[in-house]
Amino acid sequence: MNGRRTPVLLGSTVLTLFVIWHTCDSGNVLVYPIEGSHWINMKILIEALHSKGHSITVLQSDKSWYIKEDPLFYETITVPVKASLDEKMLEEDFVKLIDLLWAEGSVINFLRLFIDMMMKYKDIHIILKEMIVNMLEDQRLMKSLRDRNYDVVITDPCWGGGTVLAHYLKLPLVYNVRWLTTGEGHFAIAPSPISYIPLTGSGLTDKMTFIQRVKNMLYFVLLIIQERFTVRPIYQEVCDKYLGPGADFYMLMQAADIWLMRVDFVFEFPRPTMPNVFYMGGFQCKPGGPLPQHLEDFVESSGEHGVILMSLGSFISKLPSSLTDEIAAAFAELPQKVIWRHTGDKPATLGNNTLLVNWLPQNDLLGHPKVKAFVAHGGTNGVQEALYHGVPVVGLPLFFDQYDNLLRLQERGGARILSGTKLDKTVFLQALQEVLHDPSYRVNMQRLSRLHKDQPMKPLDQAIFWIEFVMRHKGAAHLRTESYKMPWYAYHSLDVIGFLAIMAFTAVFLTVICVRCICCRLCLKRKSKIE
Amino acid sequence: MNGRRTPVLLGSTVLTLFVIWHTCDSGNVLVYPIEGSHWINMKILIEALHSKGHSITVLQSDKSWYIKEDPLFYETITVPVKASLDEKMLEEDFVKLIDLLWAEGSVINFLRLFIDMMMKYKDIHIILKEMIVNMLEDQRLMKSLRDRNYDVVITDPCWGGGTVLAHYLKLPLVYNVRWLTTGEGHFAIAPSPISYIPLTGSGLTDKMTFIQRVKNMLYFVLLIIQERFTVRPIYQEVCDKYLGPGADFYMLMQAADIWLMRVDFVFEFPRPTMPNVFYMGGFQCKPGGPLPQHLEDFVESSGEHGVILMSLGSFISKLPSSLTDEIAAAFAELPQKVIWRHTGDKPATLGNNTLLVNWLPQNDLLGHPKVKAFVAHGGTNGVQEALYHGVPVVGLPLFFDQYDNLLRLQERGGARILSGTKLDKTVFLQALQEVLHDPSYRVNMQRLSRLHKDQPMKPLDQAIFWIEFVMRHKGAAHLRTESYKMPWYAYHSLDVIGFLAIMAFTAVFLTVICVRCICCRLCLKRKSKIE
Repeated sequence: MNGRRTPVLLGSTVLTLFVIWHTCDSGNVLVYPIEGSHWINMKILIEALHSKGHSITVLQSDKSWYIKEDPLFYETITVPVKASLDEKMLEEDFVKLIDLLWAEGSVINFLRLFIDMMMKYKDIHIILKEMIVNMLEDQRLMKSLRDRNYDVVITDPCWGGGTVLAHYLKLPLVYNVRWLTTGEGHFAIAPSPISYIPLTGSGLTDKMTFIQRVKNMLYFVLLIIQERFTVRPIYQEVCDKYLGPGADFYMLMQAADIWLMRVDFVFEFPRPTMPNVFYMGGFQCKPGGPLPQHLEDFVESSGEHGVILMSLGSFISKLPSSLTDEIAAAFAELPQKVIWRHTGDKPATLGNNTLLVNWLPQNDLLGHPKVKAFVAHGGTNGVQEALYHGVPVVGLPLFFDQYDNLLRLQERGGARILSGTKLDKTVFLQALQEVLHDPSYRVNMQRLSRLHKDQPMKPLDQAIFWIEFVMRHKGAAHLRTESYKMPWYAYHSLDVIGFLAIMAFTAVFLTVICVRCICCRLCLKRKSKIE
Repeated sequence: MNGRRTPVLLGSTVLTLFVIWHTCDSGNVLVYPIEGSHWINMKILIEALHSKGHSITVLQSDKSWYIKEDPLFYETITVPVKASLDEKMLEEDFVKLIDLLWAEGSVINFLRLFIDMMMKYKDIHIILKEMIVNMLEDQRLMKSLRDRNYDVVITDPCWGGGTVLAHYLKLPLVYNVRWLTTGEGHFAIAPSPISYIPLTGSGLTDKMTFIQRVKNMLYFVLLIIQERFTVRPIYQEVCDKYLGPGADFYMLMQAADIWLMRVDFVFEFPRPTMPNVFYMGGFQCKPGGPLPQHLEDFVESSGEHGVILMSLGSFISKLPSSLTDEIAAAFAELPQKVIWRHTGDKPATLGNNTLLVNWLPQNDLLGHPKVKAFVAHGGTNGVQEALYHGVPVVGLPLFFDQYDNLLRLQERGGARILSGTKLDKTVFLQALQEVLHDPSYRVNMQRLSRLHKDQPMKPLDQAIFWIEFVMRHKGAAHLRTESYKMPWYAYHSLDVIGFLAIMAFTAVFLTVICVRCICCRLCLKRKSKIE
């Protein structure tokens, strides 16, 4: 192909026009979101739906700390609860976990960490359950939700409230999803051979040695145990009480009409998928906008060396001080300028080249040509933004999926991951210099960026199309297999294999008996003849 | 959602403009097609690629009977062969098979039919193999193909030549695919649980009883046997000779970059898919254009009763005369007019309302509002066109996938299938009247038509996008899992399960031994104390 040029979604405006033209009738959307960075994603969908003329209602508890009312875009229904997730409490809990995580690794330490995480996870779901229970108990609220004739429920299924509510109201269901209560979303609906699909938390890729496949299998078993005995019973209890007999929570999840996955296959390893799964990874990304003046001045002052960006996401903004001192000391030795989102105590070793900030416009900074590297914890949003803008990453993963997210970039040569257990000034400085001076990191990230942007439709437009599709057709039953309703042994054809094995065995057995009978008779005949 | 309207790909022109704008650089495309109705599909892709400014080369044998030279759209390279598929021979062979197929069904008859089909299938592939062998033997041709720097090979993998050639030339490979040499395309790359995925030819749906699942499993085994012992060795021999050691033909097929499937999930039952599979079912369909004057006059003369269309595809245009007499007699009793593509002898019972034609503009006729029903054999193209235009179908399946195609419409209430074994005037007339007068058939087909047209992008535009994507990026490796390179036991984790089972067994065994040793020692100690 001659004279090829970079295909950078030039047609996005035309496509957006197409989508607006295609489905401009207004509908009623009920959104059941979750707190934290997941809400950032959901709000982008809400704003896009609002721009298409749809009426949106957002459900939140009266203890919400992240979801705010915003009458410009949506109406809010506030549900009173006794307790809710508290940002500070969560942050403190997780900082404690980091200490454990970054301590010297051993099997006992790993199991302690696993059990601690499991218990914490269970506690979170018990707290979250209260909101859906209080809603279902409030018959006036339920009647008013029914009377509003919603066209669709959109929820993030990393907790179970939205799924239960959609089935209670008998409404089509769209997932804005990466995680379910059971782990990574695909595992619940697509066949996922664990011989090449690494489990979240396993730190493995899609190419594993035998021992790694054994490790992956053990992770698989651990995750099944975690889900079966901690999270699922919490929501099954709600289903049993409010949805009547036979309502299996896991099957209700599998019955969602459309799954809008917050990944794509530039980021994720290729794996089996289903016709009702659509990929909107990077849907929150957009070209970098102008920076606030003080940041623009700081960035420009970096000259040819450029800027390093560091942020550990919206949730954890501080690290143990022993670590921050090492990090600050490494930064101080670099000719680059550094912008660091850090709300803890000022590190003693902080250099003049480093600017601490409480908040930063991450997308706009990553889109700035002076930004040379991104020190990130590996949250999905940050990793996707780095990928979109083609900025190489030094990864400091903390927990959840963060190591795995960074691993996907590292495998493609766009990131270098550092282990917290061995982190000191020298190691950190060395990694930074490698990512800054080895051009392969930037070349690879730029290649991924080009691949990501070379799609027939912008991820956000695709997501909105399928939400509106569900609204137009009252669901998307034709895209959804109902094989999840089969018993597991039938799904895996074990009953058929057993039956055929018995048939074959019987046939062989009867043949042997017949042959023996005939032989005996022949022998007897011969004997009697001889006699 | 208020005031919803039918979303009929209004934005297609805008989208087409977008695609043209997006990737207007010209590339070199090498097409390795196959004869018959498959060529009709391929030619549509070729014309679309030509309209985007790409240079296209089509490979054909000097005995081609369906693929014609067309310098307006593509250059042709003609390969001399001794033998080729001959249309008349094939038609006669298959008419003989129809007699067998429509005779009274029994297990022996079925097995005879299966073996006959298998041998016919093998003969076809032996004939087809000659062309690729002759090409690979012609070093001047191979050098000239290399020198032309093609960007991509497009082939229909229902035979193996294109796959072998692409790997020989080390070029990216795009499949225009429904069938492989191994059967339905998905089975080769996506996990396909046969507990709910019916095998082609089984006549089953995605919801099966236990006995039906047993039947499906037996079909699965039969198809594996057919492929392993008839078709695969033919192409494996070519791979062994020309691609060097280790080139496994089945793995070469699995390694194709992009699979453009000629189905969608309005037509096909939902099943697992892969990131490099894109669905272009109905890509050949377009709104009905004007009819030739004599046909327009005939159609208009039908008045309020409308027209019935009958065609058995591009391949078989005549049936046994005993059958055509029954069909013609049934048509003669209807108030509708009938247009029948039929090239055999004129049936003795032909009514005045029936027009026999050698060829008909099927898409334009199906798009005409006067056409009330379509009598079809169930080829993929015809079924997709009926679905696109929302015309109910009376199905007369002959062989291959035709029954299964029609079954997908029947399952959704848009078609009525007739068995050849029981076909007479009464049965045929009854089926026609049911489809004409029961409004549910039309309502269901119109619903399917709306669903099919409600896609974010026209199927043909999507197909062209992904072909050009492969040309831009020299493949689509990031969308393709390489799990097919694993040994089957590792892919299914059988080695890991075996290893963990042995570990668990050893652990239990050692524990039991230890406990017994300790018990024995304690017993001995007690004994010695007592003594």
